[in-house]
Amino acid sequence: MKSQLPGLMKERGLEAIAVLGGGIDNPVMTYMTGLARLMRSMFVMRANGESLLVHNPMERDEAAPTGLPRMDFVQAGLKGFTEEEGSDAGGEARMLCHVLEKLGASGKVALYGKVEANRLLYQAELIKKKMSNIEIVFDGEKSIFDTARITKDAAEINRMRDVGRRTCEALAIARNLLFSCRVSGHNVVRPGGSLLKLGDLREVLRGELTKRGLAERSGTILSMGRDSAVPHNFGNDDAAVEPGKTIIFDVFPGEIGGGYAFDITRTYCVGDVPAGVRRIYDDVKEAHRLSMEALEVDTFARGYQDKVCDFFEARGYATIRQNEAIEEGYVHGLGHGIGLEVHERPRLAGSQANVDKLIPGMVFTVEPGLYFPSKGMAVRIEDIVFARPDGKFEVLVEFPRELSGYPGGLTDVA
Amino acid sequence: MKSQLPGLMKERGLEAIAVLGGGIDNPVMTYMTGLARLMRSMFVMRANGESLLVHNPMERDEAAPTGLPRMDFVQAGLKGFTEEEGSDAGGEARMLCHVLEKLGASGKVALYGKVEANRLLYQAELIKKKMSNIEIVFDGEKSIFDTARITKDAAEINRMRDVGRRTCEALAIARNLLFSCRVSGHNVVRPGGSLLKLGDLREVLRGELTKRGLAERSGTILSMGRDSAVPHNFGNDDAAVEPGKTIIFDVFPGEIGGGYAFDITRTYCVGDVPAGVRRIYDDVKEAHRLSMEALEVDTFARGYQDKVCDFFEARGYATIRQNEAIEEGYVHGLGHGIGLEVHERPRLAGSQANVDKLIPGMVFTVEPGLYFPSKGMAVRIEDIVFARPDGKFEVLVEFPRELSGYPGGLTDVA
Repeated sequence: MKSQLPGLMKERGLEAIAVLGGGIDNPVMTYMTGLARLMRSMFVMRANGESLLVHNPMERDEAAPTGLPRMDFVQAGLKGFTEEEGSDAGGEARMLCHVLEKLGASGKVALYGKVEANRLLYQAELIKKKMSNIEIVFDGEKSIFDTARITKDAAEINRMRDVGRRTCEALAIARNLLFSCRVSGHNVVRPGGSLLKLGDLREVLRGELTKRGLAERSGTILSMGRDSAVPHNFGNDDAAVEPGKTIIFDVFPGEIGGGYAFDITRTYCVGDVPAGVRRIYDDVKEAHRLSMEALEVDTFARGYQDKVCDFFEARGYATIRQNEAIEEGYVHGLGHGIGLEVHERPRLAGSQANVDKLIPGMVFTVEPGLYFPSKGMAVRIEDIVFARPDGKFEVLVEFPRELSGYPGGLTDVA
Repeated sequence: MKSQLPGLMKERGLEAIAVLGGGIDNPVMTYMTGLARLMRSMFVMRANGESLLVHNPMERDEAAPTGLPRMDFVQAGLKGFTEEEGSDAGGEARMLCHVLEKLGASGKVALYGKVEANRLLYQAELIKKKMSNIEIVFDGEKSIFDTARITKDAAEINRMRDVGRRTCEALAIARNLLFSCRVSGHNVVRPGGSLLKLGDLREVLRGELTKRGLAERSGTILSMGRDSAVPHNFGNDDAAVEPGKTIIFDVFPGEIGGGYAFDITRTYCVGDVPAGVRRIYDDVKEAHRLSMEALEVDTFARGYQDKVCDFFEARGYATIRQNEAIEEGYVHGLGHGIGLEVHERPRLAGSQANVDKLIPGMVFTVEPGLYFPSKGMAVRIEDIVFARPDGKFEVLVEFPRELSGYPGGLTDVA
């Protein structure tokens, strides 16, 4: 949690930290500033808690609600530094030196933020050259932000639950469109009489997410049949929906501008459900149930992958544990942390190198799946789980896990 | 243009380049791979043109359409490297070493891509330690990608024009809603009888952008009165639209997942236009016209800012050239390049450090504005200009620049 940051800085001997890059799609900056839409900015904090947000003067109204002490680029002398260095990257690095001096920082300083690699390497060198009293250090593979962000506080949970509710509302509307269609031979026909395409479902889902202030960061996986069996295939919008095929909706939007994310997967099938599809659906649902039931605090996150592999292997499926190159069977990890990014710590998979244990405050996905590209079918069921302060686990936002609907529409919508 | 990359690598003595980070919201990766939605990836290219895209096996269907030679994480041994290093960041760095070796690279290697700073600094150190024949170098403040991307090829122009057309369609619909409203005293009333709020305009605009496959990356500036006079204030959705106030629409969406962007600004006013608003609108429009008329290839991009300042100062306005701390008058630069990012090179502003000249293939904004927070009004007019191969300049997508509409609606929509 964010409240751990000062303690973590002291533990690691960090005299100051600097977060670089703008406020958009830059998780660490968003963590410190909220959803301030800053095109270009810099946040510096000393171990004693003193901090400064440096921003474009045109963005003063966006910077003000952060409540952070702040200074604009003019006050921070950016123009002069840029002229002296002959470059924007140099000017920015010099401005950081200036702010560090102003805050009286000396000693170990770590840099964070999503920035352009080439530019950063130059800036780090320049800072080393200009400030003999500053040492730019690497803050461990699990940085203070990774460590803090791995657990969420109550405000973050509320926000994620709210994003989740909105996501599920949108998903329900798209699902209801699917289930309101009529099966006619090899066709799936919309109430208006036209053939339903995957693109129709995507358009509805996207529109409903947008109405609710959510953005798809990279799209939505909405794939069918063989495509659904390649986990990160985003799907073919031109494909007409076919009865008996598995249709995977994997929806992972976030607040516009890069706030908190949600992630949910459901697999649907319209018309008569083939026995093969029913079987893998039942097995995935059981794997999901077993995983949920097994969750316990103070256990290794990676261990749950083993439990699911045990289960799937006992049912005769190949798993990635047996052979990481497989494309048929259970081909991925059980889950991943989520927060400001869709994929965060902890990972419910991995080798001994993954030493994360489940602890209260964590929020992560549980998403077993079975994939058969050769048979053109797959099932994945994904929910977000919250490890509550009392050590119990709950699904952050409940949503029906049904596989199939009935011609004429469902009535038990979420 | 992209075709310049091999030549630029040779010029700078780069034996290889590596682009890190996923394919989403990572402009340099998108530049090399198109819009491949890769969550995690790595692209390596040698000066001799040999290249390799390394990707998650689950993302093979997304990686394949790039047409690039590729290898998945299993083939590249990521798991073993991660176990050896005890961390994801370390494993990734070791995988990069392996790929560089595989391609036979030695000598200067530069790193690119939008990545987490702390992680990158660690990876760069590890690579240095592991590969004595590799030197990680900084590729100038104007990197080979900055240099290539500053001009666009015909395919990029077509794509940007297409994004622009879709953006303008959405803007036209939101504008038409504004102009279809009735002014009644201090109120602006929707055809249905309810008061129009800024949030209504935003909702319509957002929905229309989404329908067209575009995403707001950080939102849209849709601000009124005093807020419109703080250039990057995004606006207050709860505010009821008022007659006689300036309303700024600054719309800068892009293809979902981080493709090409567009950027356009219009200022509107409903009901009777106050004389003060009319005056600054006319002056901004004239500044825009003069700037467009003045554009010439082989001239310094920064020089146009001076021309506009000359004009505004002659009309009695304060400018940022006189005092960079002003908040009233002309408070920003004239324009910026645009492409995979909303803000790219060249900048039509800046000091002697900005040595970019206008050359054919460039795409940039021209966006003079006047701002008066104390008077609660502002005007900005922004278009995207394309420097054609024949040395002429054209507005990439034309859109009416009118200030005001008429009760009952406009008919001359774009």
